[in-house]
Amino acid sequence: MKTFDIQPVDKSLQATIQEKIDNLNKPKGSLGRLEELAMQLCLIQQTLEPSLAHPCHLLLGGDHGIEREGVSVSPREVTWQQMLNFTRGGGGVNMFCRQHGFHLRIVDVGVDYDFRGERREERGESAVIDRKIARGTKNFLYEPAMTEAEFDRAIQVGSDLVDDCITEGCRILCIGEMGIGNTSPSSIWMHLFCNIPLDQCIGAGAGLNSEGIRHKYEVLSQALHRHDSILSPLIPANAPTRSLSSLLSPLILFGGFEMIAAIGAMLRAAERRVVILVDGFIMTACALAATRLYPASQDYMIFTHCGDESGHRLMLDAMGARPLLHLGLRLGEGTGALCAFPIVDSAVRMMNEMNNFQRANITKYF
Amino acid sequence: MKTFDIQPVDKSLQATIQEKIDNLNKPKGSLGRLEELAMQLCLIQQTLEPSLAHPCHLLLGGDHGIEREGVSVSPREVTWQQMLNFTRGGGGVNMFCRQHGFHLRIVDVGVDYDFRGERREERGESAVIDRKIARGTKNFLYEPAMTEAEFDRAIQVGSDLVDDCITEGCRILCIGEMGIGNTSPSSIWMHLFCNIPLDQCIGAGAGLNSEGIRHKYEVLSQALHRHDSILSPLIPANAPTRSLSSLLSPLILFGGFEMIAAIGAMLRAAERRVVILVDGFIMTACALAATRLYPASQDYMIFTHCGDESGHRLMLDAMGARPLLHLGLRLGEGTGALCAFPIVDSAVRMMNEMNNFQRANITKYF
Repeated sequence: MKTFDIQPVDKSLQATIQEKIDNLNKPKGSLGRLEELAMQLCLIQQTLEPSLAHPCHLLLGGDHGIEREGVSVSPREVTWQQMLNFTRGGGGVNMFCRQHGFHLRIVDVGVDYDFRGERREERGESAVIDRKIARGTKNFLYEPAMTEAEFDRAIQVGSDLVDDCITEGCRILCIGEMGIGNTSPSSIWMHLFCNIPLDQCIGAGAGLNSEGIRHKYEVLSQALHRHDSILSPLIPANAPTRSLSSLLSPLILFGGFEMIAAIGAMLRAAERRVVILVDGFIMTACALAATRLYPASQDYMIFTHCGDESGHRLMLDAMGARPLLHLGLRLGEGTGALCAFPIVDSAVRMMNEMNNFQRANITKYF
Repeated sequence: MKTFDIQPVDKSLQATIQEKIDNLNKPKGSLGRLEELAMQLCLIQQTLEPSLAHPCHLLLGGDHGIEREGVSVSPREVTWQQMLNFTRGGGGVNMFCRQHGFHLRIVDVGVDYDFRGERREERGESAVIDRKIARGTKNFLYEPAMTEAEFDRAIQVGSDLVDDCITEGCRILCIGEMGIGNTSPSSIWMHLFCNIPLDQCIGAGAGLNSEGIRHKYEVLSQALHRHDSILSPLIPANAPTRSLSSLLSPLILFGGFEMIAAIGAMLRAAERRVVILVDGFIMTACALAATRLYPASQDYMIFTHCGDESGHRLMLDAMGARPLLHLGLRLGEGTGALCAFPIVDSAVRMMNEMNNFQRANITKYF
């Protein structure tokens, strides 16, 4: 696997940043989470005047072999149908990107459909970017989801996409996914990386009933059992001696191409000090994997939304992450992260636009 | 008191609206609170295509006689100093209004300062609108905060301001306050209107320590005791037979001019079917009073933010209100409500911009 040089944020500016925040004309601490966000953004960018220039959204699509086992309420074809819908501007992700000024890249990393036949005029406002590794992963109930070479390529795809965004001037990155079945690998990663019992890691996805959830649990249990000989060195999951290969196995065995690309994107963004907005359950699972590989990458992440997917709260807690929003969103596509953008933007404006007590001629209160 | 003709929203469109929401191309219910907001907005405006045209923010300022008793950590002069700061664009409220495209009106309803001396060039981007009723309320530890005539005028001021906004095309209204000491009347209203013990209604305001909170409790207890003979008919607070005069007494005895104007604004907005964004502790107390006077007015209110002020959560619970955000904001000025605007805007865009399954050629999933 490609390596990344990810440094923890340099905290030597912390006191200076806090002094600026405390002298803005408001009672000390009265902008709550915005003040914490401002501190994080200033530390990432090593400045007293942070900027969220050229926000970009990567919408990564991929299909999952495990979908054949009936773990999702939606059929596989919805992945490509929605990808095309996004190119026409009609999806949830389009609406949020327009609202908040995000530059959207719709990327096929492993969708089970040939988009090359779609003529430009039919594709509408933007094309699907072709970074296809395969037409979906293998069914991990029977074999590893991907090869090591495919894994490496998916990491590289994500990393390269971030470089393209940065070349355009991007300082804040949002990542979303479209992949029917991708809550299944997410649940397994959460189970393996956080040592949380599997049943607490499985939820309704896009709308399973209790019977469906039971079936999903059975399938994922069997899959874990099948790969037991490779996975057993993983336990205990948080052992400090844990080897890189033991961290990579769950990613290669169960991952989706869009999820591995997301991990590559997050790691490259962290390496290049770009702010990362982490979306819901699936993107949190990718962030979890990224931080297990490179713990310092979490310094660059803002956790945006805790949805209703069972286990999402547990996973965030295990990471010590406090999400900004609780709006019951479970659409995916990165919509929760996009929805939180204005709050991050407010934190930046607070630093750049609010007056301080001295300039405003106001008796300092606290 | 001026009367208002406030009708509950007509729910006959409910099924039609829900059908539209359920056919947008997303798993059913997957946009969570946005879907609930969309329903509320459609019902208020009686349409399938809601609009948040010309958003307006009323920043209402007033001083409080009770401030003389040391119930606030900030001195009285901060009210007028901040009002001037707002005219120069340097306050928290300015930053949020610019970010979200709100038209800001800075209104003196009862500030203890003569703004007429401020020359236009010194005032900067906007003037303080003069609707002054008096230079602050009376100290309610010794006498009623205002007269009945002053109360009536304050209600009218708020109502007229809303009419001005509507004339410009406003369909969504946000209200904020600036008034050192105004958590004190808010706590008393919460105590009287919700029958919640006084100590649970008192918090740190803009930064009191535990000794300060104890002192505030003593002052407010004494004030309640002093006016006991007028207030006693109030108990039990939720009795259905409660008279209008028993509801008005706490407002006249303890209210701030900016708070009464806010109530007038909320009631007029509800009467004219304008969406109301309700801010933090103080504005929730005003919304509480408004809904006790006219229960149907709550149909038009969106509760935006639950802060850390002790008791805010209790008050929201007592009203059956679920706030959108929990960001630890306690700045006032309506900043919490402004911060939530993009989420309300997303709900509107969902209804107007998202494709449905049929047009998008997507297998309907749920």
